[in-house]
Amino acid sequence: MTNQPAGAGTPAEKTKPGARAERVPASTAAVTREPFPGSRKVYVPGVVHPHIRVAMREVLLEDTQPARPELSHEPNAPVTIYDTSGPYTDPDAEIDVYKGLPPLRQAWIEARGDTEACTGSTSAFARKRAADASAAAIRFPASRIPRRAKAGQRATQMHYARRGEITPEMEYIAIRESMRREAIVEAVARGDLRHQHPGQNWGANTPKVITPEFVRDEVARGRAIIPANINHPELEPMAIGRNFLVKINANIGNSAVTSSIEEEVEKMVWATHWGADNVMDLSTGDNIHETREWVLRNSPVPIGTVPIYQALEKVDGRPEELTWDLFRDTLIEQAEQGVDYFTIHAGVRLAYVPMTAERVTGIVSRGGSIMAKWCLAHHQESFLYTKFDEICEIMQAYDVSFSLGDGLRPGSIADANDQAQFAELETLGELTKVAWNHDCQVMIEGPGHVPMHQIKENMDRQLEVCHEAPFYTLGPLTTDVAPGYDHITSAIGAAMIGWFGTAMLCYVTPKEHLGLPNREDVREGAITYKIAAHAADLAKGHPGAQYRDNVLSKARFEFRWMDQFNLALDPQKALSFHDETLPQEGAKTAHFCSMCGPTFCSMKISEEVREYAAEQGITEGDALEEGMKEKAKEFSESGAEIYS
Amino acid sequence: MTNQPAGAGTPAEKTKPGARAERVPASTAAVTREPFPGSRKVYVPGVVHPHIRVAMREVLLEDTQPARPELSHEPNAPVTIYDTSGPYTDPDAEIDVYKGLPPLRQAWIEARGDTEACTGSTSAFARKRAADASAAAIRFPASRIPRRAKAGQRATQMHYARRGEITPEMEYIAIRESMRREAIVEAVARGDLRHQHPGQNWGANTPKVITPEFVRDEVARGRAIIPANINHPELEPMAIGRNFLVKINANIGNSAVTSSIEEEVEKMVWATHWGADNVMDLSTGDNIHETREWVLRNSPVPIGTVPIYQALEKVDGRPEELTWDLFRDTLIEQAEQGVDYFTIHAGVRLAYVPMTAERVTGIVSRGGSIMAKWCLAHHQESFLYTKFDEICEIMQAYDVSFSLGDGLRPGSIADANDQAQFAELETLGELTKVAWNHDCQVMIEGPGHVPMHQIKENMDRQLEVCHEAPFYTLGPLTTDVAPGYDHITSAIGAAMIGWFGTAMLCYVTPKEHLGLPNREDVREGAITYKIAAHAADLAKGHPGAQYRDNVLSKARFEFRWMDQFNLALDPQKALSFHDETLPQEGAKTAHFCSMCGPTFCSMKISEEVREYAAEQGITEGDALEEGMKEKAKEFSESGAEIYS
Repeated sequence: MTNQPAGAGTPAEKTKPGARAERVPASTAAVTREPFPGSRKVYVPGVVHPHIRVAMREVLLEDTQPARPELSHEPNAPVTIYDTSGPYTDPDAEIDVYKGLPPLRQAWIEARGDTEACTGSTSAFARKRAADASAAAIRFPASRIPRRAKAGQRATQMHYARRGEITPEMEYIAIRESMRREAIVEAVARGDLRHQHPGQNWGANTPKVITPEFVRDEVARGRAIIPANINHPELEPMAIGRNFLVKINANIGNSAVTSSIEEEVEKMVWATHWGADNVMDLSTGDNIHETREWVLRNSPVPIGTVPIYQALEKVDGRPEELTWDLFRDTLIEQAEQGVDYFTIHAGVRLAYVPMTAERVTGIVSRGGSIMAKWCLAHHQESFLYTKFDEICEIMQAYDVSFSLGDGLRPGSIADANDQAQFAELETLGELTKVAWNHDCQVMIEGPGHVPMHQIKENMDRQLEVCHEAPFYTLGPLTTDVAPGYDHITSAIGAAMIGWFGTAMLCYVTPKEHLGLPNREDVREGAITYKIAAHAADLAKGHPGAQYRDNVLSKARFEFRWMDQFNLALDPQKALSFHDETLPQEGAKTAHFCSMCGPTFCSMKISEEVREYAAEQGITEGDALEEGMKEKAKEFSESGAEIYS
Repeated sequence: MTNQPAGAGTPAEKTKPGARAERVPASTAAVTREPFPGSRKVYVPGVVHPHIRVAMREVLLEDTQPARPELSHEPNAPVTIYDTSGPYTDPDAEIDVYKGLPPLRQAWIEARGDTEACTGSTSAFARKRAADASAAAIRFPASRIPRRAKAGQRATQMHYARRGEITPEMEYIAIRESMRREAIVEAVARGDLRHQHPGQNWGANTPKVITPEFVRDEVARGRAIIPANINHPELEPMAIGRNFLVKINANIGNSAVTSSIEEEVEKMVWATHWGADNVMDLSTGDNIHETREWVLRNSPVPIGTVPIYQALEKVDGRPEELTWDLFRDTLIEQAEQGVDYFTIHAGVRLAYVPMTAERVTGIVSRGGSIMAKWCLAHHQESFLYTKFDEICEIMQAYDVSFSLGDGLRPGSIADANDQAQFAELETLGELTKVAWNHDCQVMIEGPGHVPMHQIKENMDRQLEVCHEAPFYTLGPLTTDVAPGYDHITSAIGAAMIGWFGTAMLCYVTPKEHLGLPNREDVREGAITYKIAAHAADLAKGHPGAQYRDNVLSKARFEFRWMDQFNLALDPQKALSFHDETLPQEGAKTAHFCSMCGPTFCSMKISEEVREYAAEQGITEGDALEEGMKEKAKEFSESGAEIYS
C-alpha cells in the first residue's frame, strides 16, 4: 500500500469543462486518487456551524454551440453532484493511508462534553491483539485512544435530536442533501431545467430544501439515522431515511479463501469512488481486527459490520460455543474501533426456526443461520434477543446504529414473504421501540429474493410494524434464474423498493451466489445500485433529482459528447464504450455517433428539422412551434382526415 | 463463414446431467453450434397436426445426495425450457448456412392453397439487384421464388383465426408455450415444485395449459400476433401477446461505420442462442438487400425491419426525396424476402411535429425523425398515414405483421408521457383498427425513457387506445444518467412494463447511446432482457414460470453446483464466475462456496441445522418442525417474554 503524492496525475486542465476522462487503472496496489473528469471539488460552509465545510463535486460544462455562426454561444451552468468519494478525489488533499484521513468530527465530538477518552480499549480481545507482537507488522501505525460516553450519558445523534439540538453532523447533512439546489432554482428561471415530473412518493415527504431542523426532526422521530460512531471522526456525515436521497451500501471483506489488508482498504476507497454511501466490512480472516482499523481510519463513509462473524471466528466456527460474554466483548472491541453500525440478528427467535424447515432454501443469512444453530443447540432463546437491553447500552455509549438483521430473509422466490420472514419482521419492530427507548438509532434490514408483485408488501409491512424506521434491503432479487447477473435481477427489485420507500439499498455484484467480487465487480455493483437509487429518487419526485438527467440529455441532444460522459455515473466507461467504435478525437465533436452513422442519426435529423424551420424564417423554438401550428392548422382545416 | 460439421465438439457426455459448460468462443467467424450444457433437444409432436415437431430444451439434473449414506438418492426430474436457439443447438441437425435452414413451414403454407409463387420478385429494386453482377459474390447462393396471396385472398394468421381455423403455427405455439407443463403438474404432486406465487396479472389471463384454440382466439381478437411471413418458412412459430410468455427482441445490423454479412448472420444466431425470440435487422449499409437474405434464410426466429431505413438509402439519405412509390417498392422487396414484421412510423402526423419543439431531446426515433423531416419539407401529411390502406394490402398478401412505430417516443426522462407521445399513440390505435379491417396483425411500439412512476400509465393508455393489440417496448429506461449501463437502466423499466402487460421487450445493450454492440454486448443485452421478461412472467403469476426458479434454488441449496449453472440463463458465465475464485474441480461438489468459505456458509449451516435436528432423532422435515414446535411451545409457555 503506497501513498500516491497529492495531485499526481491530476493537472489543472482535467478539471476544465469537457475534460477527457482517463481510464482508472484496472488494478493497482495504490489507493485510487483519480479525480472525476471535468469536475472539481467544492466545499460549502455551514451557517449554524460556520466551521463546517461540506464536500461536493461540481461538473463543469461546455457551451452550447450556436445554430448559426453569427449567434453567440450559450453557457451551461455547472452541475453539483452528491459526492461520496471523500478527500481522495480532491487533488489538493494530502492523503497518507498510514496516517488515515483527518478526523473531521473530532472537535465536534469533544465539544459536546458528554464523552471521555478510555484508558486503552475496554475490550479484552482488543487488548490481547494490541499486546500480540506477531500482529505488529500488520497493525495500523498510528495508535488512538477510544472514546465512550460518560456514565449516565447517551452520546447518540438521536439523543441530541430529541433534545432539540442541531449538531454539526445534522447541518452537514442538510447542506449535503440540498446539493446547492438554489442553483437549480436559478436554472429553472433560465429555462435550462425544463420540467421535473412531480413523482409518486407513496407517503414520503422530502422538502424542496433540506434544513438542519428537518434533519434533526427526522432523526428524533427515528425516521432517519446518522450512522456516526464517536470513534470514527474521519467520516463525512450522511443520513439514511425515506425523506432523503436513496443511499447505497457496498459490501467488502476478505474471506477464508482469499484477500489481504491492502486490498480491503483499496476496495473501500474504490467502492466510495463509484458512489457507495456506506461500506460494510464483512471480513472473516485471521487479521480481521487489524484490517478493520485500516479501513476505518481511511474511510470517509460510515462502516458497518456483522459482529457475530468475528465472534464465530473466536470460537473456531462452532456456533454452539458462542456466549454472550464473548459477543459483548466483540461489540465493545468494534465499537471502540469506530464501526458505525452493527448488523444484529436479534429477530431470529427460537420459535421461528421451525418455520424455515419446509422452505426451498432454508436460512440463507449467515448471521441468521449461526443464531438458528445456537438456538437449536441450546434449546434456548437467542442471547441477542434476551440481552437486547444490554446491547442497547453499548450502542448508546458510542453511537453505533443498529442495523437489525433479517436472519430469516427469503433466499429464493419460493420463500418470499413467508411466515418466517414476517414473524421476524414483527420482532424487529418490537426491538426498534426498545432501542429507541435507549435513544439508539435503528434501521431494519430487508430481503432478499422477492418477485415484483410482492415487493410493495414488504415495504408496506415494514413501515407499519417497524414504525417508519429506515428500511435497508438487499436487492431484492426478482428471479433466481440468473446467477452471474444478480446485480441486474436485484437492481430491478432495488429500484422498485427504493421508490416505495426503502432508504438504503445494499448492492449485489455479478458474483453473488458464485464467488468473491473483484475490482470490476465492485464497480459494476456500485454503479448498478446508483442507477436503482437514482431511478427511485426520480420516481419519488425527489426535488432536484431530475436535474442531472435533464442536463445530461441536453448535452446528448447537442452532441456535447464529453459533457455527456462527464455527467454519467461512470464517465470512464461511457468514454471507452464510445471510443470502441469511434476512437478518433474528432468523433467527440461529431454531430452523429457510431450507432447510426452520419446519415441516419435521429438526433442530427431532429436538429435539421429545427434548422430547416429556421431557414424558413422561423428562428426560435417558440416561433417554430407557431409556424408549425399554422401549417398543422391549414392541414387540419383542409379536412385531410383519411379515416373520417 | 464456414460450416461447422454437425456434432463437432458435442460429444454425447455433454448432454448428461451435471455436464460441465464449456466457454462459448468469444469470437469466431463460424456460426455458433454449441449445445447447452447438461441439456438435450427434445421434439414434441402435434395432435391436431401430428406432423409438427415442437423444439424444446430439456435440462437433465443430478440426484440429490442423501443426508446420510444409508438413505437412497433422490432423483430430480428434467426441466423443460422454452428454446429460441433453433436447430443450431441440436447436435443431430445438419446446418449449412449456404443452404439455409430447412423450410419447416413450406408445406403448411402451400397446403392452405391461398398463395401462389410469383414469377420472380415483383419489386423493381429486387430485380435490379438480382441482375447486378457486382453483387454476385455476396448473394445468398440458393435462389428461391417468392410467394404472395392469390388475388382476393388474405394470407394472414389473423384471417385464418377469424375463420375459426387452427393452423399448424397455432398448434406449434400452444405446445411451445405450454413447455410440457404436465411434467410440472407431476412435480407438484411429488412435492418438488413447492409453492408457486399466484402473482398479480393486471387483467392478463393466461390459462394453466395453452390450447391451440386459445392461440387462435387470441390472434382472432388481435390480442396476440404470430409474426410469420409466408416467405420465411424457416421460422419456428411463436406468439407475441399479453397472455403468453413475455418475449424479447434483439436488434442487429451493421451501420455505415462497420460490420459485414458474415457477422450479421452470426449475430442473429448468437442472439437467439441467448434467448432472443425475435430479431430486428436494422442494417443500413450498401449490401442491405443481400445481408437480409442471408439472415432470413438462416433464422429460426421472426425477423423484423424498418423499411424506411432502406428507402432512405435509396435516396442517398435525403428524407425529403422519399416517395410513396419508392417506399412501396421497398415494402414489396422485403416482404418477398420474408421479413416477418415491419416497423411503420405511420403515427408521426404533421400536426404532432410541433409538439416536439420544446422537448429536451426532440425526436429520437430514426424513423420518426425521417418522417418529421419529410412532413416539414413538403408541408404535407406523411405518406405512411395517407397510404395506410395500401400498406395494409401489401402486408396482407404476405402476412407481414405491423409493428406500428413510436416515432415520437421520449428520448429523455424530461420528455416522458408528453403530448406528442400520447397524440401519436392515439393515432396508432386508430390505425390498428384499420389494419384489423384488413385482417393484418398488429403490435404497437412503445417508449423509450420513462421514470418508474409513469410506466404504468403507458401500459394502461396503450391497452385502452390500442384495443389490447400487443405492446412492444424499448426498455423503458428509468434514468438518463448512466450511459454505458443502459441495459440496466432499461431492464428495470422493461421488467415493470412487462409485468403490467407488455408482450415483447426490445433489448438495450450496454452500448446504447454510445456505440455499436459487439458480441459480448449482444449476449449481455439478451440475458438482461430474459431476466426482465422472466421477472415479469413471475410477477404476473404465469403458470409454471416459477418452476425453473424453484428447481434452480433447490439445486443451489443442495450444492448441486453444475445443476445450478446448467439451469441458469447463462450457464457458461455462472460457471466461469464460480471458477474465478475456486477453479478446482472439487469445488463443484463442495458444500460451501468462495463467498464465505467453509466455516461461514449459511447454506451449509442451514443444512447442519437440519442434520443436527436429525441427530436428535428427528429424521424428516415434518418431524423437525414438530420437534421444534414442541420446544418453541415450551419456551412460549415458560412466559419468556423479555419486554412484556
